Amino acid sequence: MRTMVTGAAGFIGSNLVDRLLADGFQVVGYDNFSTGQRSFLNDALASSKFELVEADLLDEVSLGEAMREVEFVWHLAANADVRFGIEQPCRDLEQNTIATSNVLEAMRQNNVRNIAFSSTGSVYGESSVIPTPEDCPMPVQTSLYGASKLACEGLISAYCEGFGMRGWIFRFVSILGERYTHGHIFDFYRELLDDSSTLHILGNGRQRKSYLYVQDCLDAMFQAVQVAPDAVNLLNLGTDEYVEVNQSVDIITAHLGVTPERTYAGGERGWIGDNPFIFLDCKRMRSLGWQPQYSIREGILKTLKWLEQNHWVLENRQ
Amino acid sequence: MRTMVTGAAGFIGSNLVDRLLADGFQVVGYDNFSTGQRSFLNDALASSKFELVEADLLDEVSLGEAMREVEFVWHLAANADVRFGIEQPCRDLEQNTIATSNVLEAMRQNNVRNIAFSSTGSVYGESSVIPTPEDCPMPVQTSLYGASKLACEGLISAYCEGFGMRGWIFRFVSILGERYTHGHIFDFYRELLDDSSTLHILGNGRQRKSYLYVQDCLDAMFQAVQVAPDAVNLLNLGTDEYVEVNQSVDIITAHLGVTPERTYAGGERGWIGDNPFIFLDCKRMRSLGWQPQYSIREGILKTLKWLEQNHWVLENRQ
Repeated sequence: MRTMVTGAAGFIGSNLVDRLLADGFQVVGYDNFSTGQRSFLNDALASSKFELVEADLLDEVSLGEAMREVEFVWHLAANADVRFGIEQPCRDLEQNTIATSNVLEAMRQNNVRNIAFSSTGSVYGESSVIPTPEDCPMPVQTSLYGASKLACEGLISAYCEGFGMRGWIFRFVSILGERYTHGHIFDFYRELLDDSSTLHILGNGRQRKSYLYVQDCLDAMFQAVQVAPDAVNLLNLGTDEYVEVNQSVDIITAHLGVTPERTYAGGERGWIGDNPFIFLDCKRMRSLGWQPQYSIREGILKTLKWLEQNHWVLENRQ
Repeated sequence: MRTMVTGAAGFIGSNLVDRLLADGFQVVGYDNFSTGQRSFLNDALASSKFELVEADLLDEVSLGEAMREVEFVWHLAANADVRFGIEQPCRDLEQNTIATSNVLEAMRQNNVRNIAFSSTGSVYGESSVIPTPEDCPMPVQTSLYGASKLACEGLISAYCEGFGMRGWIFRFVSILGERYTHGHIFDFYRELLDDSSTLHILGNGRQRKSYLYVQDCLDAMFQAVQVAPDAVNLLNLGTDEYVEVNQSVDIITAHLGVTPERTYAGGERGWIGDNPFIFLDCKRMRSLGWQPQYSIREGILKTLKWLEQNHWVLENRQ
């Protein structure tokens, strides 16, 4: 089967590409390399079953051409940074909402019927129900990132209803693991390498966050597309635990053997639109026969190990 | 106070303009006249307090200029037709989601802090809870129209959170009354004028729909912006009743004194994405001191009376 992966050179996308190729799929990788890393595709590019299209999802002609004879789209390309929405208010609209509309239109025009999509627990805003299930009370959006991903979910659902497609929408917690290149753990690790005597923490450090190891995440997605029964399948993906930001710092500093003085920006939130408590109810995904193999702590340690072996990513980021 | 009304020449927009002018506001009316009617603004154009900007919301330069010194935006411009999403899949994205993003950006750049927005009960898809409250379980979107309006809601909420704005988001049932120019009642009336011997009805005629009279709708919006207390206020607007499509036809045929043979397309839904039962729980709006003055039946009769006096709108539509 010919599959497309958008954001193929990204953290999760490139891991997905490797897994799909190992499972014998033909893979069209689509990436504009705005944040993707070419070296993440080194293994894929050595495979005759992989084809790379270097283009933007806003380029509808390239997208339409790449979509030919594809049967399944894994749409992972996105602006994946929740923090900077208010500095560039239109970025999430363009790179997430409009890009997803373009993917769906290209699918419709090429009679492609299946889409799996990386959404986010950020669509829950500050949910009144924790752990938060997929059918929690309709939340108020608190970030442009979450709002844009919810808009994508709506587009996918409406296309499934209107054009007989099937969709698998995954609301991720933060994903950790090999090729992880942005987020709390990345920032803390880089800052401690730079200066292990102090560490500045946004918010009060007591924000509670959830993480999932990338291979567990991929296991869940593969399981879901095989067994989830509905036209539109909404599935939370996370572990049954959370950690305080301070605990993440404990794990990192213990692993590095450093004891920085911690300073705090203060406040319950790390930034405007930050959700101080993210914890998803993942019973629905578990009922499909999946469970994570790694704890948050193990995910953090695997991430640190990979970062230690790949210091180039620390310099590569802005 | 200087206010802006987008979609000023539309059904609800033009009624809103007249009310705002009557209340002494300075009003900037913004409309691209894609579906708006110039004659709906005849009274407004005679007022020195009204300024008309004939431009599209996708024209960011015109929008930014029109936004200067505005204090409050009533954002009603939209593609308001839920039925034809699958024929023109990008229209709702452009005219609703992107247009709303442009309005919010123009507001941000001009330091405008207040926005009232016409959303829709269609954001509930086929809700599992009826009557449907604002905080019902997160629904699956079934129409591109509903999906686009939910995307607008998310953008507005995120801008309120990110930039200290205030928002009033109104989820309307179908609105009826003077200057009503599209929807069930319009279609049935026009078809019966054309040929009163037969009437073709989409679906099985047993779809249950809710309606609200336009002046009741405006009363609610004015009340809400004065007393609703939150940064983001989500409010259903409807009556505490619903009617079957067949009952609407009864009211129209009795009023016209005709007895057409009714034929049915069949099925529970009138079209793909149609919601066979729309009934909103409006307790939240009622708790703010509002209640509708007119029943659905009275709203339909007022609409028929206006259509009888304004046959030009029947020919004016495509």
